[in-house]
Formats: sequence, structure tokens, C-alpha cells
Amino acid sequence: MTRSERLDATFAALADPTRRAILARLASGEASVTDLARPFAISQPAISKHLKVLERAGLISRGRQAQRRPSRIQAKPLAEASGWLDKYRRFWEGRFQRLDALLDELKGQQKKSMTRKGEPR
Amino acid sequence: MTRSERLDATFAALADPTRRAILARLASGEASVTDLARPFAISQPAISKHLKVLERAGLISRGRQAQRRPSRIQAKPLAEASGWLDKYRRFWEGRFQRLDALLDELKGQQKKSMTRKGEPR
Repeated sequence: MTRSERLDATFAALADPTRRAILARLASGEASVTDLARPFAISQPAISKHLKVLERAGLISRGRQAQRRPSRIQAKPLAEASGWLDKYRRFWEGRFQRLDALLDELKGQQKKSMTRKGEPR
Repeated sequence: MTRSERLDATFAALADPTRRAILARLASGEASVTDLARPFAISQPAISKHLKVLERAGLISRGRQAQRRPSRIQAKPLAEASGWLDKYRRFWEGRFQRLDALLDELKGQQKKSMTRKGEPR
């Protein structure tokens, strides 16, 4: 897979609330299909399908124990997706910087007006 | 849209190389459909379809000028997606920290072995 194909697979895998919830659960440790199905109102076969999508995208790996095959988070594709988004960070941080500047300006004006009020007539 | 629905729409919109390339182009300034179609081997109607997906996900906004309707990046959904990925940062940073520790250890061993070599027989 090229980097672009990996990003396609990662973003597509993350575009589903159940798959994101599965990753959130795996963030606290590896889990079997039975463990993963428990908190969801979803059948084990449906969970297995989601796990296949996550596995193909490289977001999880699965153990070899025939019965349990525990799933485990693989962070590399998440790091790549995050790296891609980082290129746009200046767009949202820029906005906050402008907000900060505006707040400083407003505070300055407030100080001035307070000083004026405190001045003897 | 709930936060979860916004993440679904954002990640689905980002799971396509042309849409990611369009965002990369818009990062250097707003552009019309004609501007956007030029570098791609894709028709303007195809570009328009991609723009609709990006617009529905809130990743771009479009101007009102009837002819040009220039597209512009909207960073908020990218910031939300990045925020979601940040919860997993410790998984990839943890790995680098372990690598750093390993490198330090290897450097330490190298120093020791160099000192030994430099010792008089």
C-alpha cells in the first residue's frame, strides 16, 4: 500500500462510530470479540466484520490463540492520519491566535475604561 | 449533527485522495471549480461532486459569486478529527519513548566498549 492508500483505508475505517468505539475500548487493553461485543447492541458477527475493516487498515492486529484471537491497537496508521491533519493545524490554531489577540485588545480597552472611571472628575 | 456524526462525515470525506488533494490546494488560498479541476485529470462535474462531499462535511465553505463560487477551507472539523486522534497519541509516542530509551542504552554500551578498547593492555 502507498501512503495515500493507507490514508484512504485509515480514514474510511475511522468513519464509523462502532469502529471508533472499538478502538476506544482497545485503548485500555487487548480484547476478544466476546469482550468487544458485550457493551454494544451488536452481534458478534457484526463486530467481527468491523474488526476485519480495522485489521485491513492496519489499525489493529489480532493474536493467534485460535479461540480468543485478542485484538490490539496498532498506532502507526493513527500517527500517519494525525500527521496528515497536522499540516492544517495553522488553520485552526491561527483562528485561536486571532481570538487571543482580540481578547488582549478587549482587556486593554476594559483597563483603560476602568482607569478613566477611577480618575477624579 | 452530533459530534459523532460530524466525525463520521469528516473521516469519510478525508478517505479519498482527490478530496485530500483539493484540501491541500485550498490550503494555499480559495479557488474556483475551474482552478481546482486544472491540476487533476478529472472533469469539472467530478470535482463539483467532491466539493459537495467536502461542503456537507463542513470542511469547505463556498462563496456566493454565481459564476465562481470559490471554495475555502473550514478548519473546525479538521481540528475535531485531530482532537479525536490525539487521544491515541500516547500509543505512538510511547513507542518512540521506548525507542529513545533503547538508543540511550545502546549508546551507553558503545561508550563502555570504546573505553575498554582505549584502556592500556
